[in-house]
Amino acid sequence: MSGVVVTNCPRAEQAVIDGLATCGTATVHEAQGRKGLMQSHMRPIYKGARIAGSAVTVSLPPADNWMIHVAVEQCREGDVVVIVPTSPADQGYFGELLAQSMIARKVRGLVIEAGTRDTAELAELGFPVWSKAVSAQGTVKETIGSVNVPIVCAGAAVAPGDVIVADDDGICVVKRDEAEAVLAAARAREEKEAATRARLQAGELGLDIYGMRQRLADKGLTYVDYSDLKQER
Amino acid sequence: MSGVVVTNCPRAEQAVIDGLATCGTATVHEAQGRKGLMQSHMRPIYKGARIAGSAVTVSLPPADNWMIHVAVEQCREGDVVVIVPTSPADQGYFGELLAQSMIARKVRGLVIEAGTRDTAELAELGFPVWSKAVSAQGTVKETIGSVNVPIVCAGAAVAPGDVIVADDDGICVVKRDEAEAVLAAARAREEKEAATRARLQAGELGLDIYGMRQRLADKGLTYVDYSDLKQER
Amino acid sequence: MSGVVVTNCPRAEQAVIDGLATCGTATVHEAQGRKGLMQSHMRPIYKGARIAGSAVTVSLPPADNWMIHVAVEQCREGDVVVIVPTSPADQGYFGELLAQSMIARKVRGLVIEAGTRDTAELAELGFPVWSKAVSAQGTVKETIGSVNVPIVCAGAAVAPGDVIVADDDGICVVKRDEAEAVLAAARAREEKEAATRARLQAGELGLDIYGMRQRLADKGLTYVDYSDLKQER
Amino acid sequence: MSGVVVTNCPRAEQAVIDGLATCGTATVHEAQGRKGLMQSHMRPIYKGARIAGSAVTVSLPPADNWMIHVAVEQCREGDVVVIVPTSPADQGYFGELLAQSMIARKVRGLVIEAGTRDTAELAELGFPVWSKAVSAQGTVKETIGSVNVPIVCAGAAVAPGDVIVADDDGICVVKRDEAEAVLAAARAREEKEAATRARLQAGELGLDIYGMRQRLADKGLTYVDYSDLKQER
Amino acid sequence: MSGVVVTNCPRAEQAVIDGLATCGTATVHEAQGRKGLMQSHMRPIYKGARIAGSAVTVSLPPADNWMIHVAVEQCREGDVVVIVPTSPADQGYFGELLAQSMIARKVRGLVIEAGTRDTAELAELGFPVWSKAVSAQGTVKETIGSVNVPIVCAGAAVAPGDVIVADDDGICVVKRDEAEAVLAAARAREEKEAATRARLQAGELGLDIYGMRQRLADKGLTYVDYSDLKQER
Amino acid sequence: MSGVVVTNCPRAEQAVIDGLATCGTATVHEAQGRKGLMQSHMRPIYKGARIAGSAVTVSLPPADNWMIHVAVEQCREGDVVVIVPTSPADQGYFGELLAQSMIARKVRGLVIEAGTRDTAELAELGFPVWSKAVSAQGTVKETIGSVNVPIVCAGAAVAPGDVIVADDDGICVVKRDEAEAVLAAARAREEKEAATRARLQAGELGLDIYGMRQRLADKGLTYVDYSDLKQER
Repeated sequence: MSGVVVTNCPRAEQAVIDGLATCGTATVHEAQGRKGLMQSHMRPIYKGARIAGSAVTVSLPPADNWMIHVAVEQCREGDVVVIVPTSPADQGYFGELLAQSMIARKVRGLVIEAGTRDTAELAELGFPVWSKAVSAQGTVKETIGSVNVPIVCAGAAVAPGDVIVADDDGICVVKRDEAEAVLAAARAREEKEAATRARLQAGELGLDIYGMRQRLADKGLTYVDYSDLKQER
Repeated sequence: MSGVVVTNCPRAEQAVIDGLATCGTATVHEAQGRKGLMQSHMRPIYKGARIAGSAVTVSLPPADNWMIHVAVEQCREGDVVVIVPTSPADQGYFGELLAQSMIARKVRGLVIEAGTRDTAELAELGFPVWSKAVSAQGTVKETIGSVNVPIVCAGAAVAPGDVIVADDDGICVVKRDEAEAVLAAARAREEKEAATRARLQAGELGLDIYGMRQRLADKGLTYVDYSDLKQER
Repeated sequence: MSGVVVTNCPRAEQAVIDGLATCGTATVHEAQGRKGLMQSHMRPIYKGARIAGSAVTVSLPPADNWMIHVAVEQCREGDVVVIVPTSPADQGYFGELLAQSMIARKVRGLVIEAGTRDTAELAELGFPVWSKAVSAQGTVKETIGSVNVPIVCAGAAVAPGDVIVADDDGICVVKRDEAEAVLAAARAREEKEAATRARLQAGELGLDIYGMRQRLADKGLTYVDYSDLKQER
Repeated sequence: MSGVVVTNCPRAEQAVIDGLATCGTATVHEAQGRKGLMQSHMRPIYKGARIAGSAVTVSLPPADNWMIHVAVEQCREGDVVVIVPTSPADQGYFGELLAQSMIARKVRGLVIEAGTRDTAELAELGFPVWSKAVSAQGTVKETIGSVNVPIVCAGAAVAPGDVIVADDDGICVVKRDEAEAVLAAARAREEKEAATRARLQAGELGLDIYGMRQRLADKGLTYVDYSDLKQER
Repeated sequence: MSGVVVTNCPRAEQAVIDGLATCGTATVHEAQGRKGLMQSHMRPIYKGARIAGSAVTVSLPPADNWMIHVAVEQCREGDVVVIVPTSPADQGYFGELLAQSMIARKVRGLVIEAGTRDTAELAELGFPVWSKAVSAQGTVKETIGSVNVPIVCAGAAVAPGDVIVADDDGICVVKRDEAEAVLAAARAREEKEAATRARLQAGELGLDIYGMRQRLADKGLTYVDYSDLKQER
Repeated sequence: MSGVVVTNCPRAEQAVIDGLATCGTATVHEAQGRKGLMQSHMRPIYKGARIAGSAVTVSLPPADNWMIHVAVEQCREGDVVVIVPTSPADQGYFGELLAQSMIARKVRGLVIEAGTRDTAELAELGFPVWSKAVSAQGTVKETIGSVNVPIVCAGAAVAPGDVIVADDDGICVVKRDEAEAVLAAARAREEKEAATRARLQAGELGLDIYGMRQRLADKGLTYVDYSDLKQER
């Protein structure tokens, strides 16, 4: 399926998406059973952004950014655009002008397994981008690709309408029809962590809170005082 | 040509250089026909710097920074020093003391296809460096190299006196005798982009502004509504 | 020696450790004869931290962070935890909850030749981490390792109680029984550099301050005026 | 879906699979519209193997090879095992003993986005492996994963029963239900190439065979004799 | 300790060393509890070599191979030279002439965490080298280093006289005083593997030979027939 | 200068070129003062080739191999084609059919700072290729570039007609008008090395042949017997 633009893809509920944004990548990833995480070579162009949105997927030819213009038209408020070239090429497919166009449509951010440019301007605009590279190198507009087809981005399968959660720790993909359940699990996890946090801040040890001592001993962990350590080597 | 220092290399006009700094790497790179861009492994040690200056080139032995001291004497106000070891070795050739010396000569920044150190101090001094690595590892002063000879830095040919434009997006080299024409082209590009920007911010689509719809259709791009999509797989 | 926790390891004197923190990685590395530097792929999760502390070493299985909980109990005020998996695997072994536990024990920071997560929260907490990767990917708690045994981290040998000095330039390991001597050497170096700095800021050249001109000439360095340069190529 | 082994997955027809093996990765990749290619960091442990087979997919935890034993039982003659850890960790999950077990079941080879070991023995046995790394580092058998679930390997989606084509050029995935059509297209391509090959060997130029001269001229390609070239620079 | 050559370092018994060579890297690494393995970026310049020998260690400055000449004099029959620059620099420190000199002293091979050159000639001579890079780039002879001091090579600590085991799978370091015990453990492992190999070749499954089925079931592994699989997605 | 094909570029004398091939990359590189070496990420697709030829340079757009067809027409017997995309993209630009066309024109080999495919077929044909990657991924024929213009390939400047020397150690560029002098220097070097080789094979040490002992002692190198070594640590 190439040269196709799928329109009117369903999205998850906005409140659910916003909830996932609050939880952040690491918590969401844990909450859904540690799946859907993109590889760690995907890095934010500036620190501190934490977003979630519905994926508008873009499959485009290497070094050709034509399809991003096509994709913009398919974007709605709350979307996150996810772009992957059909073979690796790290030019700067995306810059400030395209960001202006996405901002006008209230897109929340961009994930691209390739390069981006105009990073200073993007930071000023507050339009977050996660990319594999930063490159000033331009692209052409010669060959078509597809919008809103299933893609693989940085090792993770992404379908249009899946929820993309992204922050300084990386990017996690939540299947659209699992978003509500994952949010519930993520919130449960947060509550549990809040209780643990308080105890850790008070000086209690994870060894005791989690009851690890016996299991560690069973596995054979032994303690030796430095002064009793036979001086080897 | 090794062990040579070329003195009194001509520079481009300062106003032209300053104009190129304002335009930035991506615009200048486009304006000169997408040539002269260094590879994207060259990264700024801190964000937000945007400079241009005349290249003082340094070719030095791996892990030996002696020639940087020689190069400082050749620097004038408005220069950018460009350093490449004759074979790759990413030690920290450059640090705060050398920066003090360059600041005293009003050098604008440094580009080095190797490592730098004292990065916190350099950020405090506001002396921007683009490098391949950050490393505290020191170098020696044993073997001579050359200053102001043609070099290749991060994939781009640099002659002494060429204009170096550098910002968060990377580094672009403009040939000295092309600098004025490139500035004109860059400014023309900026004006055109300003008009496009206003339309994009107003919500117009690139598809319409650039008149892409017909050409995309000619290439075979088709639109399918999600609800009509035969549910495969 | 696996599955062992060595307790009560001696530390260097706190005043010495604090002095080394002030000097920073590059100066300490030079002062101790350029040894003990970790490889430059170890990067801080945020800029501006500069710490020193006594190493609590952790050797753990790949993708298993169980031993970090064990290590926390061995930490005292002023320590720095140094973690290396027995074979490379860059998951996020460390996050905000473990940081809370270390902060409660007044640990100064973490060095891990693998991944960390919750980086935004760690930055807010002001708990510095130097790591090989940032990854939201979780780990398991299945297999034991050792605490306070000698390890190799990013190419540098680390024994428990060695002093870890870390800042934006990287990480340097100072042997515990050499810490005092290294501090003295580092301070001497700083004093010498202060004098040089003043002269460089005043516009004197390193060529003259260091008396390099004769030795460069002896090595064959020659100066050619650009206008005399026979136009080759 | 984790901790699941799917049994009795359908395969493509053996004759079709064997035909795809003969065509090789590059031709098959072209024939199916340039999709399904794994990333080029996947390399054969020895040169000259060219295989195709039905994918038995394995999703396993990092640094844990337990599920490979589970997968072997699901293998039939003509299969290719495809293994991906749930997060990257390049230990040696696979060696000569597991190869013996697969050879006993007439498995044709292995694709693993991680490490393998016993490479000399595997070469002697003629059991081809494509991997991301070679590593003698062992793994554990602590945590379960899944067999014959959809996975992403080196950037390509793989479903159980898909056809894996692998040779010195890399690895291509053909969807099971497209295998027959792809083989037909690949053979057509081979026939066409055979005719072209004969003409190229005879000294005809691609410029003429493919009728490129006019289109190149239309794009503005110009020819300049070296002696007429104004000596610039 | 720099600028020092330690002479007459003790070696392990030759018969033990030869036994370890026969076992190979992966088996020896397992037999000694999975320690001492160098990182997998160390690769043989040709395939098929399998050696073991006593380490003559060389610590030398980056891009300077002077100390290799010094090290040759310290070599005896059966040694393996292990070279690490004090900071990374991948030039070709070693070539055919130095190999001739080592061959004259019956050295068995070389391990260098940097570059080597003359690889075709080394292959013809049958002198195996494991290196991080192949590079024709030459080095200088300006600065001294040390021979037979403890070093860290590719993540593994190496003391002079330790046994180096190297083959296509990589390189493992065996402490000199553990060599005999490790050989015994490696041989026991080989015997056990021989019995398992026969059963696997006969078609028995690892699942049964190792009695894994119950433990897998306890962990929750479930089997689902493809035809019963509810067609999701 | 883009979209230009320069015809009838002068070459160096064939006997000189053939002489350089015999010397090989490392020797030629040394003989010409250690310049012109390409970076070590350029690797041969098979081992054992050793060639030299006159450069036909190709600058082409990323992921577009159209210009290779144009370049073939410019090739003469004894040439080596050198290809660089204007920005990095590692697809397989070159395969067996293009090799057939080059073989018909008696081209000696190919150097490409990108990817190649059909590597098994190229090895069978005995057509050597040095590349940055092996990839089955195809390219398009949409955008023109230039042939026989100056390029930078893997860090080395290459002008049309320069001599390319390539073997298992890498690739070295010799300026056309320096080829004869470099060959003379390379042969002188070979003669000198032949004499040294004989002495090294006879067991003489480089320390004595090169008279290094005094200079090493002057630098402070000291020898300590292992038994006298104060057992530190």
